[in-house]
Amino acid sequence: MGKSVIIINGPNLNLLGTREPEIYGRTTLADIEALARDHGRRLGVDVSFVQSNLEGELVDAIQKARGVHDGIILNAAAYTHTSVALMDALKATGVPAVEVHLSNIFSREPFRHHSYISPVAIGVICGFGAKGYVLALDALVATFD
Amino acid sequence: MGKSVIIINGPNLNLLGTREPEIYGRTTLADIEALARDHGRRLGVDVSFVQSNLEGELVDAIQKARGVHDGIILNAAAYTHTSVALMDALKATGVPAVEVHLSNIFSREPFRHHSYISPVAIGVICGFGAKGYVLALDALVATFD
Amino acid sequence: MGKSVIIINGPNLNLLGTREPEIYGRTTLADIEALARDHGRRLGVDVSFVQSNLEGELVDAIQKARGVHDGIILNAAAYTHTSVALMDALKATGVPAVEVHLSNIFSREPFRHHSYISPVAIGVICGFGAKGYVLALDALVATFD
Amino acid sequence: MGKSVIIINGPNLNLLGTREPEIYGRTTLADIEALARDHGRRLGVDVSFVQSNLEGELVDAIQKARGVHDGIILNAAAYTHTSVALMDALKATGVPAVEVHLSNIFSREPFRHHSYISPVAIGVICGFGAKGYVLALDALVATFD
Amino acid sequence: MGKSVIIINGPNLNLLGTREPEIYGRTTLADIEALARDHGRRLGVDVSFVQSNLEGELVDAIQKARGVHDGIILNAAAYTHTSVALMDALKATGVPAVEVHLSNIFSREPFRHHSYISPVAIGVICGFGAKGYVLALDALVATFD
Amino acid sequence: MGKSVIIINGPNLNLLGTREPEIYGRTTLADIEALARDHGRRLGVDVSFVQSNLEGELVDAIQKARGVHDGIILNAAAYTHTSVALMDALKATGVPAVEVHLSNIFSREPFRHHSYISPVAIGVICGFGAKGYVLALDALVATFD
Amino acid sequence: MGKSVIIINGPNLNLLGTREPEIYGRTTLADIEALARDHGRRLGVDVSFVQSNLEGELVDAIQKARGVHDGIILNAAAYTHTSVALMDALKATGVPAVEVHLSNIFSREPFRHHSYISPVAIGVICGFGAKGYVLALDALVATFD
Amino acid sequence: MGKSVIIINGPNLNLLGTREPEIYGRTTLADIEALARDHGRRLGVDVSFVQSNLEGELVDAIQKARGVHDGIILNAAAYTHTSVALMDALKATGVPAVEVHLSNIFSREPFRHHSYISPVAIGVICGFGAKGYVLALDALVATFD
Amino acid sequence: MGKSVIIINGPNLNLLGTREPEIYGRTTLADIEALARDHGRRLGVDVSFVQSNLEGELVDAIQKARGVHDGIILNAAAYTHTSVALMDALKATGVPAVEVHLSNIFSREPFRHHSYISPVAIGVICGFGAKGYVLALDALVATFD
Amino acid sequence: MGKSVIIINGPNLNLLGTREPEIYGRTTLADIEALARDHGRRLGVDVSFVQSNLEGELVDAIQKARGVHDGIILNAAAYTHTSVALMDALKATGVPAVEVHLSNIFSREPFRHHSYISPVAIGVICGFGAKGYVLALDALVATFD
Amino acid sequence: MGKSVIIINGPNLNLLGTREPEIYGRTTLADIEALARDHGRRLGVDVSFVQSNLEGELVDAIQKARGVHDGIILNAAAYTHTSVALMDALKATGVPAVEVHLSNIFSREPFRHHSYISPVAIGVICGFGAKGYVLALDALVATFD
Amino acid sequence: MGKSVIIINGPNLNLLGTREPEIYGRTTLADIEALARDHGRRLGVDVSFVQSNLEGELVDAIQKARGVHDGIILNAAAYTHTSVALMDALKATGVPAVEVHLSNIFSREPFRHHSYISPVAIGVICGFGAKGYVLALDALVATFD
Repeated sequence: MGKSVIIINGPNLNLLGTREPEIYGRTTLADIEALARDHGRRLGVDVSFVQSNLEGELVDAIQKARGVHDGIILNAAAYTHTSVALMDALKATGVPAVEVHLSNIFSREPFRHHSYISPVAIGVICGFGAKGYVLALDALVATFD
Repeated sequence: MGKSVIIINGPNLNLLGTREPEIYGRTTLADIEALARDHGRRLGVDVSFVQSNLEGELVDAIQKARGVHDGIILNAAAYTHTSVALMDALKATGVPAVEVHLSNIFSREPFRHHSYISPVAIGVICGFGAKGYVLALDALVATFD
Repeated sequence: MGKSVIIINGPNLNLLGTREPEIYGRTTLADIEALARDHGRRLGVDVSFVQSNLEGELVDAIQKARGVHDGIILNAAAYTHTSVALMDALKATGVPAVEVHLSNIFSREPFRHHSYISPVAIGVICGFGAKGYVLALDALVATFD
Repeated sequence: MGKSVIIINGPNLNLLGTREPEIYGRTTLADIEALARDHGRRLGVDVSFVQSNLEGELVDAIQKARGVHDGIILNAAAYTHTSVALMDALKATGVPAVEVHLSNIFSREPFRHHSYISPVAIGVICGFGAKGYVLALDALVATFD
Repeated sequence: MGKSVIIINGPNLNLLGTREPEIYGRTTLADIEALARDHGRRLGVDVSFVQSNLEGELVDAIQKARGVHDGIILNAAAYTHTSVALMDALKATGVPAVEVHLSNIFSREPFRHHSYISPVAIGVICGFGAKGYVLALDALVATFD
Repeated sequence: MGKSVIIINGPNLNLLGTREPEIYGRTTLADIEALARDHGRRLGVDVSFVQSNLEGELVDAIQKARGVHDGIILNAAAYTHTSVALMDALKATGVPAVEVHLSNIFSREPFRHHSYISPVAIGVICGFGAKGYVLALDALVATFD
Repeated sequence: MGKSVIIINGPNLNLLGTREPEIYGRTTLADIEALARDHGRRLGVDVSFVQSNLEGELVDAIQKARGVHDGIILNAAAYTHTSVALMDALKATGVPAVEVHLSNIFSREPFRHHSYISPVAIGVICGFGAKGYVLALDALVATFD
Repeated sequence: MGKSVIIINGPNLNLLGTREPEIYGRTTLADIEALARDHGRRLGVDVSFVQSNLEGELVDAIQKARGVHDGIILNAAAYTHTSVALMDALKATGVPAVEVHLSNIFSREPFRHHSYISPVAIGVICGFGAKGYVLALDALVATFD
Repeated sequence: MGKSVIIINGPNLNLLGTREPEIYGRTTLADIEALARDHGRRLGVDVSFVQSNLEGELVDAIQKARGVHDGIILNAAAYTHTSVALMDALKATGVPAVEVHLSNIFSREPFRHHSYISPVAIGVICGFGAKGYVLALDALVATFD
Repeated sequence: MGKSVIIINGPNLNLLGTREPEIYGRTTLADIEALARDHGRRLGVDVSFVQSNLEGELVDAIQKARGVHDGIILNAAAYTHTSVALMDALKATGVPAVEVHLSNIFSREPFRHHSYISPVAIGVICGFGAKGYVLALDALVATFD
Repeated sequence: MGKSVIIINGPNLNLLGTREPEIYGRTTLADIEALARDHGRRLGVDVSFVQSNLEGELVDAIQKARGVHDGIILNAAAYTHTSVALMDALKATGVPAVEVHLSNIFSREPFRHHSYISPVAIGVICGFGAKGYVLALDALVATFD
Repeated sequence: MGKSVIIINGPNLNLLGTREPEIYGRTTLADIEALARDHGRRLGVDVSFVQSNLEGELVDAIQKARGVHDGIILNAAAYTHTSVALMDALKATGVPAVEVHLSNIFSREPFRHHSYISPVAIGVICGFGAKGYVLALDALVATFD
């Protein structure tokens, strides 16, 4: 039977493609969702997609993934750098997760260089814009074998 | 046509005037709202006013200001010191913002001296109690010319 | 008339007993609630019990305790280490609070050694699993005299 | 009888309006003085105005304010970040002071984020250019009531 | 056969109840000993009680607990923050220990926030005055099951 | 005409697959080279492959890529964390580069969390073993369009 | 009736005058005791004098000073920089104390620049060799008035 | 022939005795001058006395002491913590100096715990109010033998 | 028409050649002035020369250079490490400046390794004694072409 | 005449061989004493051996070595990382010392990486278990020539 | 069959005995090689000996030791403090290694107190000059049993 | 007989003049060599010139300078900030060295502000582009007298 992956997006990603294109590009979050679902189909993987500006709702989304999805792709955006709660949610649910960032967080402000997600993720992909989600799907699916 | 400003208030400000008057004074948040709306009328500016204890709802409020309000007055309270999400919301929406604090945050605990809001705000006003909102309106309106 | 205590639980504690038993034990949050209510009855204290994954809802819960409960037992979990908002809520409401943690946070990662709750709590109890809630009730009730 | 306020300006502010307009605007210090005196008249407050490049002369100016002026507006410029002597002068004379900066010091170099003045001032206003002096007068006068 | 617990007290606790009651209360160390022995009897546990101002004698006391007592309650007072030797003694003897502090060390000077004892203790109880010893006994005894 | 990519590997990667499989897997560097060349063929991209234990030879390799290759995939291994020279080589040659690590460097020792390569790379991919090279090729080729 | 002062000396001061004269001079501790007793007689103050290499015995000496001596002169030597226990003993006994050091601790290694004694002492005298004890007696007696 | 000592006082000490008596006492600087000159006469030492709010004038005063005075007593006040120039002046002139502070700088804000003067002074005396100047004279004169 | 350069010297440089020759050599400031004027003549550049112990006077000197001199050679001595005011003066006047130090500041105390001047200077020359001024003239004149 | 060496052992080493064999091995302190005495005999060196859990008694032991022993082998255990008093004792007595640790302190907790003993010892030997004492004897005796 | 050990020496050790004898002694590296080979013969161990100034060549030397030598004695000199590559080489090859330094690195500059080698070595020997190599051979051979 | 100087250039300087001219200018390393040789002829000094991308080869070059050259001009480029080996080579060979940088390293990233070369060089010249080599030759030759 087919695998299922949920892509969880954090605060302000709903504004994607409408401002600061020099950092995040012109692609909207809907574009990314279409891209990811499309790529999921090619890989034979079902792709769900959520976004929230609330840290606690992202915690909820991770918790609900357990027993339902085989993997998580998490772009926690700003909460990446401040949320122990997301880290704990990933650890507690135990669903394998790949961390994604649209921009290269290491060429931005120093406080964006630290991530509470990274130590509990399988791996990290950042700096490749919307393409990063496609790469993350590939990376995640590769671990399903 | 008249300008519009939204005043966004963060966690625990709903308790204002009921406790710790030595730090925040006896004025309630409703008093401040009245004061600000009144001053807005004098300046010919429409004033909206919201408060939430949830970081994500404050992010939402900032995002919704875009295309609706000409400026934001933000008292993020405790989230001032911990929220990259609010910083990113201000940057992503691009609505000009003035940061306000009732107390002088620089004469309090060291962790209150750092603000994620300040670097993306036009400027900062702190230490003048409810009066700070009135000053912030003046400061914001002065940038509309 | 009897005293009333509210036990407020933070993010991911709803998963208790289902994963990582080597850190948190096999007891579920419902077990803890039963244990606490039972112990409350023995002490002649009414015990309420809430859990939320949202920082702002925990702020709300603390605010609502004012005038309703005589004391708070707070296990803020991950928000312990990052939430100035919870600290401010405790200070602003002025309801006496005891901080509880299931695990010994001082034998875990360094970022878990700092708590924004501790300086505004009466005291701290950590490392004793579900038993910690019972001890916290005893400690809190002892201050009612 | 009318109140009296002295506006004390620190090093390099005498060059204002002649260089680096992208940071400080094109207004000269004389323009600011006129603006402040004018606003003072509207508020019924006498406004004095001094500038010096010498830290010790600024200490002198603060000391002389005692018993003569009812409040100080201090833009200590570069000395803001390095002068314990100015901090001590404000504490020792006890004349209420408002700290002003033309630019938003929190969006500049990190060493400009710390101020020895802030902890002993009533409050801080920064980022609003010459307008900041007008706001500071309003803020100061509001404390005279 | 009954269990045995030793309560080990560090420097200056012999002065308890005679000075600084605002921090430590008026209870003397003898009062605490009586309280603890009494509570021990209720729990069916034999309670020993020692105090020393010498770090090395506290190391000795911990070492001697091995094979004699089933658990240690340790209030290392000032040595809590500076003694690697006590930490090593607890690790080397392997007798389960509960750390107790009369005051809430987290609302005092920053150097009191770090404990060399905590990482090698079962758990920590602080801020509840003499009551903390009773809670510690309960906590320790609960681990004997 | 076809694009060309060079994959540059740093110190100790020549030992890959022969030790510490729990961190790096059992794949040898030759396996990775085959995998990458194969994937390059599918993408219509020529893939070169070098390894050296000498920082200066890696600098040389980056310099020689200029005008010869359209992109670099760099796994600088230990030099990632210590080499300003590699950073400068990437900047000076201006050939677009993707940083790859076999292991998740953020779940290892703290000194491995900092990379001199990241700020001058397009993006970073880490934690996916040999698969990371394939993803890096995809990511790099996506930037050629 | 005459006042009484105890001079408490810490580790290695018993070796005084026999080694490292370039730092501590050639005067022995017995010379200092004679000097201090002699100066005490001139001031009409009884002078006691103790030395110990054990931190805990110094704690004992401070505790015993309470109710017996009117002031303490404390040269805690190496324990100055590491002993919270001595700090607590001074606070707990409440006997006024003057801190003395033979050498200028601020021109030596950085770890000697911090003292746990200073914040709870009346004042500090260092760098004047044996003469420092005489000055300390003068300083202490001046506070008796 | 008699020795000569100059007492150099830094910023805000001219306000002494008029404000913040809880920190500095009620004695004025003129009182201290009289006290010091009087004590100098008893010691057979000529005492000069200067005060300035300007760091550079204090540098001048130190430089002029060379060849004129046998020792300096320096209370650099706020400049103690920020002035490398005063440190260099003391080193360059080579006149022996004693550092004095009225208050115990180690029981005040952390930035007052560091002194640029201490490493180049003979010794330090702080916390004894005006009496400190008398002690400093004794200490300095003792080094003339 | 000929170019004009002003050499501005900071605190304690007036003592040059009279003390601490092992660090600064035996050349006096007058010697350096002669050397620099002489070298200026060879280069066809008019050389002015000032020294002050007052930070504010050095700020004044930099401000006055604007429109009068084509370049500044600045040896700010002790103020190098503490003066934001000098940094701001250089930025505000915009006259090109070369930073000079007689000694190698990087082989001295750590606090001398940081310079507020360097980031706003064209370049830095240190460690070559009086010769450094000649080199600075050459360096500055080379930028006039 | 033969040389004499004293081996001084710090806190908890008396428990050696009875617990935590994975760190310290199964050899008891008595075994080490026998080993060292035996090796001493082979080298023609008299070996004394002491152990104490009290920092002050270790200070005493070092002081008494002066004039009696030709060298010290010091395993200060936990006091290694916290005792300025032991450092001062070694400096003050001037008896050449070799520092020994059974375990490799650099592969343990970070606070064990710093030693107050090392800077005043001839050298350091750690990580070789009981064999380290034998090596230390060889190293010490080699310096007697 | 006999065991084999390789002694690997880092940068500038080839200059040994020709400069800075106060730190490293007069023994040349050739002397040390002879000493080590001689001692190896006594122990029945074959001793190889290499030196290189290139970090990468030292990495190569460690890698080649695998399967050829039973142990490594590594004096990485300057690379000790900066080379993650050498640390990784030791871990990756798994050949047991002893770290040696001629001088006591803990009595030198602070940046020499940290070693990337120590955490992956069996143990450390430093401060005993050429004798340290002999001790390291003894220590290494003792682990062969 | 004439003096001889060797100019040693570090990593990536071979690319000079071909990229990032806004930082390093358009001059190639060959241009600098010609410039330096030409200036050397004018000064009567023989100038050698080497470049390498390998840290160890730069160590070699410094070592070989001993007994052959009278001075070194070292532009270690990226290794300036990371190489203890180069520092040790300069100290061990004892050939006087001048440190040169084309750009003003103090107006670039913070990690470029620290140099391991500076403390062991005669002096530093940075920010003057190719001209810096000429100034360094002048500075070095001036020390030959």
